[in-house]
Amino acid sequence: MKVSSKNDSRENILSAATRLFHLQGYHATGLNQILKESGAPKGSLYYHFPNGKEQLAIEAVKRMDVLIKSDIVCSLEKYENAVESIQIHVQKIAADFTNDEKLECVPIGILVAETAQMSELIRETCKTAVEGWEELYSSKLIKNGFEPEIARKLGVTINSMIEGAVTRSLINKDSQPLQLVAECIPLLLKK
Amino acid sequence: MKVSSKNDSRENILSAATRLFHLQGYHATGLNQILKESGAPKGSLYYHFPNGKEQLAIEAVKRMDVLIKSDIVCSLEKYENAVESIQIHVQKIAADFTNDEKLECVPIGILVAETAQMSELIRETCKTAVEGWEELYSSKLIKNGFEPEIARKLGVTINSMIEGAVTRSLINKDSQPLQLVAECIPLLLKK
Repeated sequence: MKVSSKNDSRENILSAATRLFHLQGYHATGLNQILKESGAPKGSLYYHFPNGKEQLAIEAVKRMDVLIKSDIVCSLEKYENAVESIQIHVQKIAADFTNDEKLECVPIGILVAETAQMSELIRETCKTAVEGWEELYSSKLIKNGFEPEIARKLGVTINSMIEGAVTRSLINKDSQPLQLVAECIPLLLKK
Repeated sequence: MKVSSKNDSRENILSAATRLFHLQGYHATGLNQILKESGAPKGSLYYHFPNGKEQLAIEAVKRMDVLIKSDIVCSLEKYENAVESIQIHVQKIAADFTNDEKLECVPIGILVAETAQMSELIRETCKTAVEGWEELYSSKLIKNGFEPEIARKLGVTINSMIEGAVTRSLINKDSQPLQLVAECIPLLLKK
């Protein structure tokens, strides 16, 4: 019973931290707010996360990474054709963006860059995550007959386009920039 | 003499604010730090900027916008060929990125997205700035014979690619992602 309640506290703190970092960004989120939203007892934050905010950020990035990777894989597996599946993935992000809740969210790329400047450990975690997303796009392109070297460059470019377009849609307060970028995917991937 | 010193205070506060927002981001920068770095007298911040941090952010974005626009125009005017000039522009950003000082800077897109969620006035200022950059790319493409509708989409896409690649280079702590994206520009703009 005691073990389970300890695990609950850890999970509640990490959930609250991930949600708040994603909603407000890293700097705007304080440890007190995380603790309050988690409902966990006061001493438990440093008990479970002895390195405090840095450790919470690392765990939060890892958690977001799992969700993002699963979204990418889900889109890429839907169609054999790389161009079509990557385009549909961007259209899906655009469709998600019209949810009011998403409009309030900090794009992962921003959270990543905001925190990457503060700690080498956070930066390394972010780098591993983003490289994984790029790798998924590259592999899909290689399977579709692209040269590995070009596929690697395109993986970085596609991911950058998406991150930039999410930021741009946030500025626009609508999904139009993401939709326009989705329409340009076939131009970029024309053989 | 009095007028000139008043203008100096205003200019010093705005310079310090622009520099600090660009180095640390919006949330991480406090009014006290801006005032301290500016060397301006304590009362002068709210005298010159009655709306405080929001007003400073708006003026800082406008100031960065002028610099970024002039960089884009400078690159685009260098070569008649749109593909070549846009590619060289991204390579120039990559070269700038290897400066140690740039490595510490918050990409404008991040600053923009970080602040755009806090105030409609800041968001509108950011939107106008970014639309101006996209417009410069689109116009260059139209001059090179691209259809206006496609040129508009490509303008948004090119700008998103660049913003995403700056963020990605920050995570990498080197300019390689920007260089890879520069290499993909001819693929995107192949007619």
